[in-house]
Amino acid sequence: MDERTKPVGRPPNAATSAALKEAALRLMREYGYRKVSIADIASAAGVARQTLYNRWKTKADLVLEAVFEETALVAAEPDAAGEESCRVQLETFLSNVFRHLDRDGDAMRSLIAAAQEDESFQEEFRTRFILPREEMVTGLLRRAQERGEIGRNRDPEFLSTLIHGAMWYRMLNGQVVDAAFAHDIVEEVFRS
Amino acid sequence: MDERTKPVGRPPNAATSAALKEAALRLMREYGYRKVSIADIASAAGVARQTLYNRWKTKADLVLEAVFEETALVAAEPDAAGEESCRVQLETFLSNVFRHLDRDGDAMRSLIAAAQEDESFQEEFRTRFILPREEMVTGLLRRAQERGEIGRNRDPEFLSTLIHGAMWYRMLNGQVVDAAFAHDIVEEVFRS
Repeated sequence: MDERTKPVGRPPNAATSAALKEAALRLMREYGYRKVSIADIASAAGVARQTLYNRWKTKADLVLEAVFEETALVAAEPDAAGEESCRVQLETFLSNVFRHLDRDGDAMRSLIAAAQEDESFQEEFRTRFILPREEMVTGLLRRAQERGEIGRNRDPEFLSTLIHGAMWYRMLNGQVVDAAFAHDIVEEVFRS
Repeated sequence: MDERTKPVGRPPNAATSAALKEAALRLMREYGYRKVSIADIASAAGVARQTLYNRWKTKADLVLEAVFEETALVAAEPDAAGEESCRVQLETFLSNVFRHLDRDGDAMRSLIAAAQEDESFQEEFRTRFILPREEMVTGLLRRAQERGEIGRNRDPEFLSTLIHGAMWYRMLNGQVVDAAFAHDIVEEVFRS
């Protein structure tokens, strides 16, 4: 009993967590999601495997957090007080998201696949990644509607589904998502 | 050598193939894609496992063919000579596809997940399933354009991506795809 309650390794702290997330992203970009194990990530970050397990249950949980934080850096939420039109803001935002997929698209695809095979991870993925990212687009489209850039008869939530769906469909079919695709999407959404 | 070249079991024929595909769909609907093995399917169809392997390399290959044929039955290609408007034809077609996903959506999600983990299956899935189904929608939208139901400035292929993307995104996130969703999609595509 004493043995089991004794702390194992260093307690996780922000620096250790950051090192683990950074190692996870770096290894996945080099070798691909499936070829990288929990042991590889812990070893690359120079920590005991248990330290990683103290914070994340599975590889998918760790990668989810790492990719989410990276996405937030590369494609920050559009500024509600921004002076640019919502149309320009959406195109910039989507271009940034797509640029990020160039690097971490393989991890995203693997996370989506993992969510199909594990209901509790699907729930976590949805709550911690999908919904916050979706809300950024829905919020921007609501502002577009308030400013009269899109009609009152459009449904921001439905349009957000169309936008994310187009991105997922291309990505999951191994096709390119790039700035030109962002432009086509915005053209369609803001078509009067 | 003689042993290995000797034919094993009955040669596959149309009736055997049909029995295997039917067994695959039936078992998957009951237990879910992941819980059903090649051995379960062969046994339910009353054939030797080798008979199945003579025709399909993997469970995913067999299920791909079974689901594709079933989709074609439930949601047949819209009739190019049909008298109904393309808008009505598209809504009917999508409602049928979505109704089918009620039964085989779990298998579709598992096939999409499998495609993320195996490049050669991704290619097969794309060539034998995705592209033919996509072309049905693109073809219908081209006719809609010829008849003046959608503008000349719209791109049928891009619209087809939006439509399939919306379906995949909802399905992969465990959300409902139903007749109301088909209506919303058609409303958006034919919005003037």
